[in-house]
Amino acid sequence: MATHSFQPTRYYNAMGTYEPVLHIRDGDTIITTTVDAGGFDAGNEQVAARGNPQTGPFYIEEAEPGDTLVVVLDRIVPNRRIGWSNAVLAPNVVDPHSVSDLPRPDDGSWIRADWEIDLAAGTATLATPATQLGRLTLPLEPMLGCFGVAPERGQAISTATSGPHGGNMDYRGFMSGVTVYFPVAVAGALLFVGDGHALQSDGEISGTGIEISMDVQFTVHVQKGKRIFWPRGENSDYIFTVGNARPLDQCVQHATSEMLRWLQGDYRLDPLGANLLMSQCARYDLGNVFDPAYTMVCKMQKHILSMV
Amino acid sequence: MATHSFQPTRYYNAMGTYEPVLHIRDGDTIITTTVDAGGFDAGNEQVAARGNPQTGPFYIEEAEPGDTLVVVLDRIVPNRRIGWSNAVLAPNVVDPHSVSDLPRPDDGSWIRADWEIDLAAGTATLATPATQLGRLTLPLEPMLGCFGVAPERGQAISTATSGPHGGNMDYRGFMSGVTVYFPVAVAGALLFVGDGHALQSDGEISGTGIEISMDVQFTVHVQKGKRIFWPRGENSDYIFTVGNARPLDQCVQHATSEMLRWLQGDYRLDPLGANLLMSQCARYDLGNVFDPAYTMVCKMQKHILSMV
Amino acid sequence: MATHSFQPTRYYNAMGTYEPVLHIRDGDTIITTTVDAGGFDAGNEQVAARGNPQTGPFYIEEAEPGDTLVVVLDRIVPNRRIGWSNAVLAPNVVDPHSVSDLPRPDDGSWIRADWEIDLAAGTATLATPATQLGRLTLPLEPMLGCFGVAPERGQAISTATSGPHGGNMDYRGFMSGVTVYFPVAVAGALLFVGDGHALQSDGEISGTGIEISMDVQFTVHVQKGKRIFWPRGENSDYIFTVGNARPLDQCVQHATSEMLRWLQGDYRLDPLGANLLMSQCARYDLGNVFDPAYTMVCKMQKHILSMV
Amino acid sequence: MATHSFQPTRYYNAMGTYEPVLHIRDGDTIITTTVDAGGFDAGNEQVAARGNPQTGPFYIEEAEPGDTLVVVLDRIVPNRRIGWSNAVLAPNVVDPHSVSDLPRPDDGSWIRADWEIDLAAGTATLATPATQLGRLTLPLEPMLGCFGVAPERGQAISTATSGPHGGNMDYRGFMSGVTVYFPVAVAGALLFVGDGHALQSDGEISGTGIEISMDVQFTVHVQKGKRIFWPRGENSDYIFTVGNARPLDQCVQHATSEMLRWLQGDYRLDPLGANLLMSQCARYDLGNVFDPAYTMVCKMQKHILSMV
Repeated sequence: MATHSFQPTRYYNAMGTYEPVLHIRDGDTIITTTVDAGGFDAGNEQVAARGNPQTGPFYIEEAEPGDTLVVVLDRIVPNRRIGWSNAVLAPNVVDPHSVSDLPRPDDGSWIRADWEIDLAAGTATLATPATQLGRLTLPLEPMLGCFGVAPERGQAISTATSGPHGGNMDYRGFMSGVTVYFPVAVAGALLFVGDGHALQSDGEISGTGIEISMDVQFTVHVQKGKRIFWPRGENSDYIFTVGNARPLDQCVQHATSEMLRWLQGDYRLDPLGANLLMSQCARYDLGNVFDPAYTMVCKMQKHILSMV
Repeated sequence: MATHSFQPTRYYNAMGTYEPVLHIRDGDTIITTTVDAGGFDAGNEQVAARGNPQTGPFYIEEAEPGDTLVVVLDRIVPNRRIGWSNAVLAPNVVDPHSVSDLPRPDDGSWIRADWEIDLAAGTATLATPATQLGRLTLPLEPMLGCFGVAPERGQAISTATSGPHGGNMDYRGFMSGVTVYFPVAVAGALLFVGDGHALQSDGEISGTGIEISMDVQFTVHVQKGKRIFWPRGENSDYIFTVGNARPLDQCVQHATSEMLRWLQGDYRLDPLGANLLMSQCARYDLGNVFDPAYTMVCKMQKHILSMV
Repeated sequence: MATHSFQPTRYYNAMGTYEPVLHIRDGDTIITTTVDAGGFDAGNEQVAARGNPQTGPFYIEEAEPGDTLVVVLDRIVPNRRIGWSNAVLAPNVVDPHSVSDLPRPDDGSWIRADWEIDLAAGTATLATPATQLGRLTLPLEPMLGCFGVAPERGQAISTATSGPHGGNMDYRGFMSGVTVYFPVAVAGALLFVGDGHALQSDGEISGTGIEISMDVQFTVHVQKGKRIFWPRGENSDYIFTVGNARPLDQCVQHATSEMLRWLQGDYRLDPLGANLLMSQCARYDLGNVFDPAYTMVCKMQKHILSMV
Repeated sequence: MATHSFQPTRYYNAMGTYEPVLHIRDGDTIITTTVDAGGFDAGNEQVAARGNPQTGPFYIEEAEPGDTLVVVLDRIVPNRRIGWSNAVLAPNVVDPHSVSDLPRPDDGSWIRADWEIDLAAGTATLATPATQLGRLTLPLEPMLGCFGVAPERGQAISTATSGPHGGNMDYRGFMSGVTVYFPVAVAGALLFVGDGHALQSDGEISGTGIEISMDVQFTVHVQKGKRIFWPRGENSDYIFTVGNARPLDQCVQHATSEMLRWLQGDYRLDPLGANLLMSQCARYDLGNVFDPAYTMVCKMQKHILSMV
């Protein structure tokens, strides 16, 4: 149960079976950093190509295909004073006939907003552009937008999108204190982390959160022979499953089916009981509705599960 | 500002321009009852055809096309001791290749669950079928699944589905204390109410909540010349907009566009400010993912809106 | 087997259980006219409200709920010299980020094209606007965009959209010589016809074909006790089924399931045989991808069916 | 303009930047073979892992990112006497509530059909299973289900799916005589070919065509500095564009936008002219509605384009 401090020197814009940067073991903790979605680091220098460049991959010795990798997100903290976001909603989240009404400069460029991050106060304050919002100040909710493991079948999948391996899920629920489960598809699992957001809407509807570099600490475990099909997670109140696909309807199907399997597996519910419980108690969150694959999350309250 | 007690004697399975059961005025309050989705009343007698039979329509004197009808849901309380639900998830909410794994009797029939409602305790307790859940007891969260106004263009739209006029939105957020806004399409607005649920999951993923007859009290107002395009609502913490369509992606588009209009209208935000605010602060709820039209809700915190 | 000449004097913008304009019998033929989508007649006078105003409804004496209404489209011929269309593609058929690139005047208005119809030559020639297409001349393929029967459950459904009852399917295949089958939901079936197109793309991707008033002749039959769930049709080469929904994926599901039923019903194929035959021989057409409900058509070649 | 005979010895189940098997030049022709979707070769021996194993990649010397690779499909001919298919439709192409009615053995296994291929007669004849179809005989229409180039961003994308790089598009139109255009994303383009079908329905609705190994001949060209965004193609009658995504609605958007670009690019139409022409003349084919990404094809008649 070692603790490793790791300072990345190169980054990946896809998740694949690349040379590991570090070999670690079940129970180990990693303290590292991530650059922002545009490749800018704690000093606001661009050190990686834009598009959710990832720190890693980390090779977990015990992990083999068919296992489950457990990642406890111990700490996710912005490590610089400035973040940025797209100021305008994405064309695909408004009615098609309203797209032309979205504000944009005559030259067709996008409008960037800058935000000042105050860790002591726990806030992000809008610095530019000038709008009626003035210096709007919002509470920080730091999270990871894109992280996951190497996918099956020798694939290397762009960090623009997501799948059973995780990836660019852009779900606000991936905060400090949350435990995440990934299906292991390759030897060592090959864990990647990146794309920190100081905060984000449901749906990541402008295509960004407040993008920022992060100090990240996480701890890994391996569940041998435990087979899952989609990312899972839990926080103090809920267990949850993550479906990544398009349209959102299909995300719902993946997340719901995975939750049915979870309830009938670990919670040993009979099929009818699992159906009945979900039918009145399931909750859903919208992860993102912007990336090539969208994300919906199915949740069940631990309090209710403790009663059955 | 009269209060009317109204006891329905007939019910509608579509929302259309039907003969009003009562003419009321801006500010009036109605105390009435609704039967359950199957047409069963407080005495558990079937008094209407199945399929979300509606109480109403109520004609609001001041309401004309182009206005907004305000409906304050004062009180929604189950008026009998037994509710029912589908016990098994709907085929469209699980992966297509998992549909055959859903429990169902060999004769292809559906499995009904019965629930005991205890108003004093504020709970619903599972009576049948027998599963590992035993006598699972859940807190009541009474709501209306299907209500709305007569649609435009002389239409009469089935209470199985929903649209800009409201209808079968099956959103858990339509509880006591919530204010709902509908676009008025015909003279008198013609308000219908029905389809009470003692509680419901997000998504109404078995195709039912806990279906039950209700005592319902609501108060109406008319906003003259105020034009909206989709149902809106507010509770103590949020304002919200409701998109009804398929797939869920399109629900998101409708709800998001309507919220942009709201922020730029009543809240007088500049377009860039409205975009920027939603881009980091929007929240989404899943209404239903079962009915012919699905429902997604876009929410903004009143607390944040009070700052801009 | 009478032939009725009927000159409409009023039109409907929804399909519902309205007062019939004519009572006819199994085997009867109707010779009538339809106005264009904007309500303009053979003399280019507006005689009805815009939005696919319909001629009818025709009450077929033998038709009862649970039967199938057969409509043979004997003749569909433009009855004036000018047609019109939207000149620009609909925002929903291009990539969201390309919507702003669609040509439109600064005032946000839509651009209308006018076409000269030459029945003798069998052509439509572009008159305006001026583009590099000049006086583009295309062969006529006259069809009905919107026709169908009164829907179930007392509904009246806008002629903007479609469903199991038919409606605004905007499928180029509904030409002269085609036989169409509708599920009868109300006594008399209540048949409506309208929305003629001189020609149309697959998908009706600008939201219109070349809109024009028509001389229409059709003959009706009733198949007693024959239950179908979605519109069906046949021409000299194919039988086909029509799915109306959103997204297109769901249209495919409806049309495919209806074809499976047809093959196992009238064609008496065993389930495995029906699956196997469709699995390698099915063809699909795109009806429309513009209306509130889209349309996909599943087809099987009669030549192949004659072999099994 | 050399002709190369290439006998593969290894195969890839993803399309990525792998070591080329052959370096060729603009104008060269390749004569090679492909194994079937299950990895079985001309001798019906399994020589590759299942899942559309690919022959290649071929490195085309002149091809650089930003160019277009032209692939002329000179000859696609089955090279063995037996093909196979799934006998039952895929669960996702029928109504969710009809999935349980699809025939399947009690053990949940899938049902395979075998087909006898007669090249001289140009036919495929059903050998097993026994159904009312008997020995159904269908005309061969040999095609490639899965082929394309290495994707951008260092990705390696599973041959189960498709994207801008091509891949598992499963479009019946990719027959002998067709010319296909791919956007080049990496040096050398890295062309892969595989997944031959003796014939296939529109939509590949059982998840397979008649799967078979092939003799394949193709000729490559490079269009320097010609930038396209999605695969394009042409045959004697049509030019076409290919959109790969989910749902089908998004495929339509990609294919339509790419066709607009083509008409305004090579055909030098003004934007309004390009819109107007497509609005009445576009045709669409359904490629597949089974794979992780579906495929729709937008077509324009060359005959019409020759007039403008």
